[in-house]
Amino acid sequence: MYAPTIEELIEQFAQLPGIGRKSAERIAFYILDIMSEQDARRMADTISLAKKSVSFCQVCQNLTDSSPCPICSSDKRDKSIICVVEEPKDVAAIEKTGRYNGLYHVLHGAISPIDDISPDDIKIKELLVRLSSGRVQEVIMATNPTVNGTATAVYIQRLLKPMGIKVTRIAHGIPVGSDIEYADELTISKAIEGRTEMN
Amino acid sequence: MYAPTIEELIEQFAQLPGIGRKSAERIAFYILDIMSEQDARRMADTISLAKKSVSFCQVCQNLTDSSPCPICSSDKRDKSIICVVEEPKDVAAIEKTGRYNGLYHVLHGAISPIDDISPDDIKIKELLVRLSSGRVQEVIMATNPTVNGTATAVYIQRLLKPMGIKVTRIAHGIPVGSDIEYADELTISKAIEGRTEMN
Repeated sequence: MYAPTIEELIEQFAQLPGIGRKSAERIAFYILDIMSEQDARRMADTISLAKKSVSFCQVCQNLTDSSPCPICSSDKRDKSIICVVEEPKDVAAIEKTGRYNGLYHVLHGAISPIDDISPDDIKIKELLVRLSSGRVQEVIMATNPTVNGTATAVYIQRLLKPMGIKVTRIAHGIPVGSDIEYADELTISKAIEGRTEMN
Repeated sequence: MYAPTIEELIEQFAQLPGIGRKSAERIAFYILDIMSEQDARRMADTISLAKKSVSFCQVCQNLTDSSPCPICSSDKRDKSIICVVEEPKDVAAIEKTGRYNGLYHVLHGAISPIDDISPDDIKIKELLVRLSSGRVQEVIMATNPTVNGTATAVYIQRLLKPMGIKVTRIAHGIPVGSDIEYADELTISKAIEGRTEMN
């Protein structure tokens, strides 16, 4: 229906997550019809540059444009504690709180037998290498509270047990600002189990 | 929260229509984390190339990578009839039906006093130039059946009246208030078949 160049542009956007064919068409026509040539060039250059200059931090495996990343190389962070997350987005979400001052480790996924993702497919080996230095005293498992995230947390906890490192799991409970009546039963159970004394 | 290069990549996607901040982050991490370097380069190149090589057809104003476009330069199309649409997407939607064999004219918008879009801001002048040749016997107004689209159709119909050209409007087979690009092929076919003369 479209000229080959336009069709190719639509297909490039349609392959991205969360973008269907109609959205891809809308974006393609926005670029061709409304964006300035300068802005379009800038967009193309940003994609090329980002892909070229962004890589995994050799320490925490987070995406970064300088390795080690700013968090790993900061001398203001507490290097005795590592928070293990599934994705780079999770690091950003925790950093936004400003309430955590330790290091991170990004697994890039979670163990999932159904999707054929085994422990070797995520960055667990790299975590073990970091822990072998003996400097780390606590590992917080902040994988998602899903089946896969929980299985991954349990798997890593069992690996670390013989190393004598304290392994903790982020609290599960009722999200702040939400209604108890709309929380699912498992979440409410976890919230009651994990109750803390009020002082 | 993210490295500057990553932040810039997220912002580039967040500016596109229909993509919010969260979707832009998801897309950026997809490109950085999952796409191959080759695929990312291809995406960047496609944007540059498309923006460079795609322009408006000098005749119908549709987006094309060769001007005049394949439809305008085809000797199989009926050159006595022009279908006027708002956007290039509408041409594709009508072509998909396979029930129309005339030419097109893309206005690139509709008259909208609220958005400060006057008749001079859309490709009406270019339509009048085409009609001055005297070859065209019918103009089908296929602007969207919205307030702006209908106002544009009426405006053009009044302009063409003194020229003695038959002006028709697509039938209201298309649900009023919605976009042509989202209508199904049968509805679009019915709308073209059931067109009525504007008086």
